[in-house]
Amino acid sequence: MVTVRKIDINCDLGESFGNYKMGKDEEIMRYISSANIACGFHAGDPMVMAHTVKLAKDNGVAIGAHPGFPDLMGFGRRKMDIAPEEAKNYMIYQIGALNAFVEIEGLELQHVWLHGALSSAAAKNEPLARTMIEAIKRINPELIFVHRPGLASFEIAKALGMKVAVSVGVDIEYNRDGTAVIQRQKKPSDPKEAAKKAVRIAKEGKIRVATGEEIDMRAHTILVHGDTPNAIEILKEIREAFEKENITVTSLRAILG
Amino acid sequence: MVTVRKIDINCDLGESFGNYKMGKDEEIMRYISSANIACGFHAGDPMVMAHTVKLAKDNGVAIGAHPGFPDLMGFGRRKMDIAPEEAKNYMIYQIGALNAFVEIEGLELQHVWLHGALSSAAAKNEPLARTMIEAIKRINPELIFVHRPGLASFEIAKALGMKVAVSVGVDIEYNRDGTAVIQRQKKPSDPKEAAKKAVRIAKEGKIRVATGEEIDMRAHTILVHGDTPNAIEILKEIREAFEKENITVTSLRAILG
Amino acid sequence: MVTVRKIDINCDLGESFGNYKMGKDEEIMRYISSANIACGFHAGDPMVMAHTVKLAKDNGVAIGAHPGFPDLMGFGRRKMDIAPEEAKNYMIYQIGALNAFVEIEGLELQHVWLHGALSSAAAKNEPLARTMIEAIKRINPELIFVHRPGLASFEIAKALGMKVAVSVGVDIEYNRDGTAVIQRQKKPSDPKEAAKKAVRIAKEGKIRVATGEEIDMRAHTILVHGDTPNAIEILKEIREAFEKENITVTSLRAILG
Amino acid sequence: MVTVRKIDINCDLGESFGNYKMGKDEEIMRYISSANIACGFHAGDPMVMAHTVKLAKDNGVAIGAHPGFPDLMGFGRRKMDIAPEEAKNYMIYQIGALNAFVEIEGLELQHVWLHGALSSAAAKNEPLARTMIEAIKRINPELIFVHRPGLASFEIAKALGMKVAVSVGVDIEYNRDGTAVIQRQKKPSDPKEAAKKAVRIAKEGKIRVATGEEIDMRAHTILVHGDTPNAIEILKEIREAFEKENITVTSLRAILG
Repeated sequence: MVTVRKIDINCDLGESFGNYKMGKDEEIMRYISSANIACGFHAGDPMVMAHTVKLAKDNGVAIGAHPGFPDLMGFGRRKMDIAPEEAKNYMIYQIGALNAFVEIEGLELQHVWLHGALSSAAAKNEPLARTMIEAIKRINPELIFVHRPGLASFEIAKALGMKVAVSVGVDIEYNRDGTAVIQRQKKPSDPKEAAKKAVRIAKEGKIRVATGEEIDMRAHTILVHGDTPNAIEILKEIREAFEKENITVTSLRAILG
Repeated sequence: MVTVRKIDINCDLGESFGNYKMGKDEEIMRYISSANIACGFHAGDPMVMAHTVKLAKDNGVAIGAHPGFPDLMGFGRRKMDIAPEEAKNYMIYQIGALNAFVEIEGLELQHVWLHGALSSAAAKNEPLARTMIEAIKRINPELIFVHRPGLASFEIAKALGMKVAVSVGVDIEYNRDGTAVIQRQKKPSDPKEAAKKAVRIAKEGKIRVATGEEIDMRAHTILVHGDTPNAIEILKEIREAFEKENITVTSLRAILG
Repeated sequence: MVTVRKIDINCDLGESFGNYKMGKDEEIMRYISSANIACGFHAGDPMVMAHTVKLAKDNGVAIGAHPGFPDLMGFGRRKMDIAPEEAKNYMIYQIGALNAFVEIEGLELQHVWLHGALSSAAAKNEPLARTMIEAIKRINPELIFVHRPGLASFEIAKALGMKVAVSVGVDIEYNRDGTAVIQRQKKPSDPKEAAKKAVRIAKEGKIRVATGEEIDMRAHTILVHGDTPNAIEILKEIREAFEKENITVTSLRAILG
Repeated sequence: MVTVRKIDINCDLGESFGNYKMGKDEEIMRYISSANIACGFHAGDPMVMAHTVKLAKDNGVAIGAHPGFPDLMGFGRRKMDIAPEEAKNYMIYQIGALNAFVEIEGLELQHVWLHGALSSAAAKNEPLARTMIEAIKRINPELIFVHRPGLASFEIAKALGMKVAVSVGVDIEYNRDGTAVIQRQKKPSDPKEAAKKAVRIAKEGKIRVATGEEIDMRAHTILVHGDTPNAIEILKEIREAFEKENITVTSLRAILG
């Protein structure tokens, strides 16, 4: 197995909307190296995006787009049968909108991470995945395509010549096929357990799935969900564990070169 | 008065939404030199934007962003009391989103034209106008700020060092102070009259307002509204009149250099 | 075969939104006996609903709710994986909203017709259908549940003791299993053919499906889609054919008693 | 001055949206007698409405509609220039939708309280207020129109023969003319001070405004905002103070008879 000693930590941020606050973005930013920022479809709005991008800048956190289904009421966690052409244009729109906030701050967008049910849909629908990934590449061929492990979308992005990064969530459960168990409301996760999981992934590239089995998990980045109630404790615990184990936290850009 | 022999013709396009069709964009594109494309707030959606940008490309029409209030139900024609900071971020979001469709086609965004009630609000609210225009300049200092004549926003954009262009509608009425009479539903306009108005503006820089008086109107571009029921007839008539009068129709970029 | 001599004609109306006009509601109302009115989720808005309800009243047309997915951008024609509990509450919300416009005019809501992809989803998902139909019954047990033929939702509504009515579209194609072929954009249909189809349904209870076979089709009401480009011609032709054949057009309420 | 010994306590509830939680509705319900429930325009959605109505039922709390501007992003706190006819139909839609949830639980809607900027707009725009109030009366003449003190809308509702109730917020500041100081984000308020204010209103009908002066304030109901960070402490304090002073907390219906 790989001897990864550098790893990224990413989190979904900028998921507030109007007067609705979600996630403790200000605190979380201090523990992560890459932020997946919502783009106004499943969450986020222009005020939130501007604020979150500035926050990332202030904390030296790399920025990625986190585009989703146009379903604020369902937080992008309900599958919608959209056509590949629709998905493609939703990508361009959302990534373009976020990119404007990033560029105005003199930064560059690092990656794209499909959100929730859109990510799951792409994992199971090859034409959908291909069309979206081609669009992402056309927007900017330097964008890193971040994804969960074991998915068809991974192979598509690689085949198209994109930089890809595997992200593994330490506060959620995985199925044996590598797909995540989608939860509409996140539950707390044990911070010690999550940190152990994170170290295991970083050092050995292995993870235990919901059914108890162990599978290979070579990850470039560790995901902690911003709406997990105890996200900050989990992050603190991971950072401490990483320090003890001499694992360096750095952005995907730095890892993938 | 000026001997303008080159003038731009602009039109608000891409105002359809989902299954809702508005305007005859395919036909209109053949008669204009600049398109103001809706950005998904007051009208437009990602599919419509992608389609309209391609249509502009195919017709050699320069592209501008047409950002508006987040009010699809009111088509951006109802004033909303938004804070300057909100307006600024709505600009960045909308222009950024459209820009992504423009860049993916290998084109460059030419201008920004505030839509409907947002444009009117900016004309009367100096901090609102200033904050938005500063944001537009930060997005891209080469963007041309298009506006109706006689407005405070004009002076602000000029003072900030932006390229500015005056647009005059030939299918709407103007008040003596140069502000347009906002209509929720456009009515047909006489094509011959509109063409005469257009020639007069191009050659003499003058226009007759609703109260019957004549005022100075040095315009860089002539506006025809896409939702005016007989927009195409008006455009045809203008093009014919321009040809007879040796007035060249060309993009704002070409006019302003 | 039944000797139906009374039949209802229904149409989806009130599908405009804000400045976006869809369908020729004013004209269509003169040819139908029941209107399925959009409730603001997939189409329609409060202004449109108020207007359409008054129009129905003026034309003596019975009113039904036409609730759909919360997806204006997709016009309710894209399946969304919503939970039965969500679907139930979307029903209560939409039917309640429309009902207020109906009651304020001194009328009573006649029926409920699920829209587009929600109707298709209900046909294939028993818990979804059951939960929605139970909610509709609780809102008002006198409401008639209108549906396409051959669907599980039919049996559920009947088993729950609701009045049910079968609706058959004469401007769309059917699959052998009785489900409709969903089209995102309606195409014109031949008016003479549609009228023949309608007479055949009314008199013999039979229809020819897309594959060419003939299946039984006992319908209480004939559906013409408002967004079929030549909807009015089709309706005229049907009314003329019905007159020749002594088929009386009347509301579902009158038919079901 | 009046010897009010019975008073209602109301709170804006059901302001969550999708995965976004706002307010501690479960706890607040235990301290109030009337709930103003958001109707899906400025806040709330069908799931939230269903849940909140059930919660009110379980706690014996009377239910009112809290309709607002169609501006979720601005939480209904930004003035929109809507026409009276639009406001009227937005009322019918929102009240109708909420009413369906109320009736399905076997309850009756008690009152209507305009939300945020819509309430402020109605206070300054007589045709707007009149058109909305007439619509509310047509929906159900038994509905109580709740309002802040000193407003034109009060006189209109009375003149139209509606039952009216004055509501006074104890966690916000008032201007001398009785209009509330609109805040986009509520700040904490001192619970002891709020309780004193409440007792003073109930017993003496007086309140001190932002400028320090004391004005008459005959209130039927005390308002505590659900998004005031310490709403529950304030409510507890008020209930204790009321108990000591023998002030009975009961619904508006019970007070107005």
